[in-house]
Amino acid sequence: MTGLLELNTPAAVVDTARMEHNIERMQTRMEALGVSFRPHVKTTKCLPVVQAQIAAGARGITVSTLKEAEQFFDAGVTDILYAVGMVVTKLPQALALRRRGCDLKIIADSVAAAEAIGAFGRETGEVFEVWIEIDTDGHRSGITPEEEKLLGVARALESAGMKLGGVLTHAGSSYDYDTHEDLMKISEQERNGVVRAAERLRAAGFACPVVSLGSTPTALTVPKLDGVTEVRAGVYVFFDLVMHNVGVCDISDIALSVLTTVIGHQEEKGWVIVDAGWMAMSRDRGTQKQKHDFGFGQVCTLAGQVLDGYVVSSANQEHGIISRVGDADGDIARRFPIGTRLRILPNHACATGAQHPEYHALAASGATKVWPRFYGW
Amino acid sequence: MTGLLELNTPAAVVDTARMEHNIERMQTRMEALGVSFRPHVKTTKCLPVVQAQIAAGARGITVSTLKEAEQFFDAGVTDILYAVGMVVTKLPQALALRRRGCDLKIIADSVAAAEAIGAFGRETGEVFEVWIEIDTDGHRSGITPEEEKLLGVARALESAGMKLGGVLTHAGSSYDYDTHEDLMKISEQERNGVVRAAERLRAAGFACPVVSLGSTPTALTVPKLDGVTEVRAGVYVFFDLVMHNVGVCDISDIALSVLTTVIGHQEEKGWVIVDAGWMAMSRDRGTQKQKHDFGFGQVCTLAGQVLDGYVVSSANQEHGIISRVGDADGDIARRFPIGTRLRILPNHACATGAQHPEYHALAASGATKVWPRFYGW
Repeated sequence: MTGLLELNTPAAVVDTARMEHNIERMQTRMEALGVSFRPHVKTTKCLPVVQAQIAAGARGITVSTLKEAEQFFDAGVTDILYAVGMVVTKLPQALALRRRGCDLKIIADSVAAAEAIGAFGRETGEVFEVWIEIDTDGHRSGITPEEEKLLGVARALESAGMKLGGVLTHAGSSYDYDTHEDLMKISEQERNGVVRAAERLRAAGFACPVVSLGSTPTALTVPKLDGVTEVRAGVYVFFDLVMHNVGVCDISDIALSVLTTVIGHQEEKGWVIVDAGWMAMSRDRGTQKQKHDFGFGQVCTLAGQVLDGYVVSSANQEHGIISRVGDADGDIARRFPIGTRLRILPNHACATGAQHPEYHALAASGATKVWPRFYGW
Repeated sequence: MTGLLELNTPAAVVDTARMEHNIERMQTRMEALGVSFRPHVKTTKCLPVVQAQIAAGARGITVSTLKEAEQFFDAGVTDILYAVGMVVTKLPQALALRRRGCDLKIIADSVAAAEAIGAFGRETGEVFEVWIEIDTDGHRSGITPEEEKLLGVARALESAGMKLGGVLTHAGSSYDYDTHEDLMKISEQERNGVVRAAERLRAAGFACPVVSLGSTPTALTVPKLDGVTEVRAGVYVFFDLVMHNVGVCDISDIALSVLTTVIGHQEEKGWVIVDAGWMAMSRDRGTQKQKHDFGFGQVCTLAGQVLDGYVVSSANQEHGIISRVGDADGDIARRFPIGTRLRILPNHACATGAQHPEYHALAASGATKVWPRFYGW
């Protein structure tokens, strides 16, 4: 059995019991709300995780790259939404997937993009299913619900013979809030906006069967989802310190940690040097502007117990510096001798996971199993 | 021929003429200073780059992980310094490399670590070559030059029959400066400290043949290197916006860029949405606290011409938002229509490179060639 003491460090560890709990919590909630759930697999890019999500009841997946679509299609997932605006240079790759039997949906938020998809579809004899991206919070892409352009995109798709599959939105700005009241407001705004866009399309004679929304904070907050058919979320499967600060998980729900080894000290400064630098943690400092800044991560014992006040306060490529917040710990070298193994909870599970070629899935027995993940485009 | 228009985006592009120029500049400088040069390969983890460094005159390499040591040893590089404090759990991997003929040097900065190396060496009958890490600027690991511990480490190595190969230091705090005067000061401090440590060891009867120092800013600033035998530096091979702000390269020296495609707009906000988000750029915001904040990167045309004032102002996983610093560009959608290809200069070449499975080496002819890189531990 390979346990945490046998792994090379740094290593990304997934607490599978916590992961299963997180999956169960989301799926149960979605079923109670009467919507289907399409997890965003960009967080993990890892087949065993996605298989667990599907086994729990997820219907289809969301991807952020066509490589994700290819990898998960090869593994047997057919219902795939590529949720990044499509451009003409990526259409041949999308076409190849569809020709192989993948039920790939693509998205557009401009007449130009819709026309390009339409032209390519006609040229190649392919009827692409396109969803229109709706902007419900101004944080990134999409068409706001009342814009005239919404109907323009639908018409461009229809006139080229493409299939308008629905509308989708992502209230990414929900990450910026940390009170239930604000999360209620943004989740209702997300729902309201995307439903309104669907209504406008239907009033103009377009079918618009799918109404899709989601982000982890809104999915875990929204009290009802009238008019919505599906929810998407990604990071909920592992959670992280940013989500903890937002207020949608306990610190004990965080399923991803980075296993590290103490390699040195600067005793008079109260520093422990570990072999988890930014290469292992990522450069994500997502908690910097939140109510609790965890540096590059929260330190835990090997068994996963949170060491309150100890964070990775600084990081070089392969060196992390652990210190106590506030007053320096003069006893830190004795507390954590060279060779001590610790686990660090990450700010942002998507970013930290991306630094690692594999996860080590940790069972309740203490045994670990390699779960490969992929990267690149 | 695969040119920049044929690549899938996002993609990491290396301007090989710039890279060769950067290699030449450093090597020429080191030869003039009368020291040998040992590049840090953690920046690129890419064989063709390291081969170019060695062809130009580099002697040996520095690595940040044992995986780098293994990969480059398999490719024929034998003289390798693993410049991260050694712990007992990594010694079997180091031993295996040495047994295969790799001239691997390891480092220590505590009596405990030196004793652990000594015990393992005796047990396995291996004489490890160990360099002692010196702290010359307080930024991370190492023993300060006047500490009693310095001799304790040397004695621990000697009494276990290990080989004390030398001393090394890395003034990583040089990244925090941006005037020639400050860089002169820190580079002299780095030289002075490591030479002093070597003198103390020699006065106590230890040979200490190697005196090694370096960081890109100090290597490119220090006017003379009396008492030093070798210099190490990594990021100089590509440079980046952080180094530009530090003042050791022109923006036109930056050899790494991320090729991206415009996928949408938010016209009234003056935003262009591109397919290079933080997954392609990394989450490194190293210029945030410097004199010129470039957001997540500086925007250039496909041909590499800097578009002054246009930066990646915000980034999600696979979406970057480009905007003009200061007043919004109301004409941005016409300036950069959907499908436009741009190139983004990174804040930190080490972090950006790490997000990509390969570089696309761009020759003066416009042709590109795949240069694989690796990751993980």
